[in-house]
Amino acid sequence: MNRVLVSQLMKHINEEVKISGWVHRIRKLGKIAFLLLRDRSGIVQCIVNTKEVDIKGIKLESVVNIFGNVVENSKCKLGVEIQLSSLEIISEVKEDLPIEVNKEEMEASLDAVLNNRVLSLRNIKINSTFRIQAVIAQAFGEFLKNEGFTQIFSSKIVSEGTEGGTELFKIKYFDREAYLAQSPQFYKQMMVSAGYERVFEIGHVYRAEKHDTKRHINEYVSLDLEMGFIEDEREIMELETSLLKYIFESVKRNCSKELESLNVKMPEIKDGIPTMKLSEAIDILKKKYNKIGLEKDLDPEGEALICEYVKEKYNSEFVFLTHYPQEKRPMYTMPAENGETHSFDLLFRGLEITTGGQRIHNYDMLKESMIKHGVNPKSFEGYLIAFKYGMPPHGGLAIGLERITAMLLGLENIREATLTPRDKNRLAP
Amino acid sequence: MNRVLVSQLMKHINEEVKISGWVHRIRKLGKIAFLLLRDRSGIVQCIVNTKEVDIKGIKLESVVNIFGNVVENSKCKLGVEIQLSSLEIISEVKEDLPIEVNKEEMEASLDAVLNNRVLSLRNIKINSTFRIQAVIAQAFGEFLKNEGFTQIFSSKIVSEGTEGGTELFKIKYFDREAYLAQSPQFYKQMMVSAGYERVFEIGHVYRAEKHDTKRHINEYVSLDLEMGFIEDEREIMELETSLLKYIFESVKRNCSKELESLNVKMPEIKDGIPTMKLSEAIDILKKKYNKIGLEKDLDPEGEALICEYVKEKYNSEFVFLTHYPQEKRPMYTMPAENGETHSFDLLFRGLEITTGGQRIHNYDMLKESMIKHGVNPKSFEGYLIAFKYGMPPHGGLAIGLERITAMLLGLENIREATLTPRDKNRLAP
Repeated sequence: MNRVLVSQLMKHINEEVKISGWVHRIRKLGKIAFLLLRDRSGIVQCIVNTKEVDIKGIKLESVVNIFGNVVENSKCKLGVEIQLSSLEIISEVKEDLPIEVNKEEMEASLDAVLNNRVLSLRNIKINSTFRIQAVIAQAFGEFLKNEGFTQIFSSKIVSEGTEGGTELFKIKYFDREAYLAQSPQFYKQMMVSAGYERVFEIGHVYRAEKHDTKRHINEYVSLDLEMGFIEDEREIMELETSLLKYIFESVKRNCSKELESLNVKMPEIKDGIPTMKLSEAIDILKKKYNKIGLEKDLDPEGEALICEYVKEKYNSEFVFLTHYPQEKRPMYTMPAENGETHSFDLLFRGLEITTGGQRIHNYDMLKESMIKHGVNPKSFEGYLIAFKYGMPPHGGLAIGLERITAMLLGLENIREATLTPRDKNRLAP
Repeated sequence: MNRVLVSQLMKHINEEVKISGWVHRIRKLGKIAFLLLRDRSGIVQCIVNTKEVDIKGIKLESVVNIFGNVVENSKCKLGVEIQLSSLEIISEVKEDLPIEVNKEEMEASLDAVLNNRVLSLRNIKINSTFRIQAVIAQAFGEFLKNEGFTQIFSSKIVSEGTEGGTELFKIKYFDREAYLAQSPQFYKQMMVSAGYERVFEIGHVYRAEKHDTKRHINEYVSLDLEMGFIEDEREIMELETSLLKYIFESVKRNCSKELESLNVKMPEIKDGIPTMKLSEAIDILKKKYNKIGLEKDLDPEGEALICEYVKEKYNSEFVFLTHYPQEKRPMYTMPAENGETHSFDLLFRGLEITTGGQRIHNYDMLKESMIKHGVNPKSFEGYLIAFKYGMPPHGGLAIGLERITAMLLGLENIREATLTPRDKNRLAP
């Protein structure tokens, strides 16, 4: 007998079916018991003899096959329930569950949630998080594919860092030393020059930063894109605006159940995203929020406040900050006037989720910029060479997948949006 | 003036347009010269004064804007050509090209091709390789998404190996030691147990194998999937058959130009893929090809010969080999009778491109199997725990993205199907 998914039961009313999944909850009412069965598509109520539950010693989270009749019941959310004929345990629970997974809200510390990842992911809300994350990543790729971008897979084992020599994880690579890539930045740019013009990558990047905050992890998924033949960074910002609209539409279309379970309010991007210079933002923070000490960059509190300001003034949950000063941006950033750059950050609900901008495409200018940034051009020859043989003007951006997921779903800590987070103290599971 | 892509020029006949790209070739015929401009969408012939080419000193591979009139010319493959009005160099070529990129066949050694990756990728054939590769990866994800799979991003920094302690790259992880993941095997299985039931991952895996062959690299992209509630490995094989059909259809639909440039003969999967036991294959090789010394596994020559045999006998370029012996498969493989396992390999045009099978889902059986394989269960507690709280029967597979690309396109060395290959001797670009 073929298994029927819970979400398909409405098509089998008054039929005998087989369903399979985990025992989500058991409620005994005298002789009758209600057993909730959970599979990847939903939860269904099964009516069963309490005796059967007791004799078989059915525990929560056991994996079972249930055979039974599908009957209509308008009181059930699903519209149907199962009158159980027989039940078969496929995989038993061997020990008491260290955390309860069947409550709406997980009542456990973040550490307990992460230590018991397989179990905590069975909680409907937590499970929904990563279904939505998958759709975000896929929508990113779909949109860009439609815009003529080619997906690339660049090496994560590199001989030189992207932004300089700091904060890299070292690898023993046979008889040499190598590093884990901090970003696919160099490779994306090289692939623009290689004739693809427009490329994107969805892959892990690694930062050996020691600080342990709720917005940092040491391994994360970067949604990267780079495109050639642009005028300046504004084209990248326009592209990102359309991209985000596409992603959110796709999440709405594919994840209505998940959004409902997480009680998410989807952001709206109506007439584009408000834009202001970083220096304006610092000014506003000083004047309106009495926030001093900000020099050429925002701190987390500043990011949160400026988002508050923009929300109030422009009714937008997003804001582009532009014209970051040269000393705050990597050596490949295209300079603008007055020591500023053709660069931007995108803030969403109080957190930076994107860094982007136009890059230098002229060989001599890039070399000079390296020296100005205290970087030895000799260490970056493999990268520099890409600028010797015809490199179009170009720019790009990177979106942190865990960050956009966390902000969209209102999660406190970025680790809640990471399947298996890595930080200074966490290397498992 | 907005740039028009070469592939869109047919829509602009008798209009003045701007096109942008690389100077692919220049052919002077007295006063007139033909300049071929290449962008990401194709190549167009531009008619230009030889004087202009000489005065501006236009070099091959320079990046230029060309303004001109689109005129019909049925002799051109594109159907149109450009009568140039003006030309603007955006990015000059600073040095002589170390390799020629504009010939149909790249006349350079593999080392030269890889050392000059940005340039060699501008060659039409080489460029096409990675456009097709991108479509393979995307089609893999699309098919599985439609089959109810959730994409996951699991950590590549791990504290324990998948198949045992050998062949791992070591990382200095703050004050600890960690390793680069050999495979997402444990995580995919854990995510089946976490309630996703069906998951896939497209990501890098790392093997510190010292041998340097044309079929091995030390970092590659693994197309991984895992699914729960299966009967046995045959369901995984059926899924892969449909998956491959979908991938090849998608490549045909999206990459006709690339397939033509590479002169690819697409494989056909008509009535499924022939299947034989590994022991049968060894028998055939002994009897028909006089190949001796094969014990419980095939060597590269054996793989090639059995593919030859299957091609001749069943007119298939694929063959599933099944029932590998227990000592040749990892500890998580579901055992079958007579010391065999519920496992399979898929060979395609002479090379193994997939390993898969049913996994053990019973906690005690898995623990026993670890001990039998000489693995200490204590080292794999984070993994084992997933089997304690209800784990459905499950199985999965992994396809090497570079291998399937190389075999599909008839590339000799897997490095030709890797954007930036990593091996014992190569760590750049």
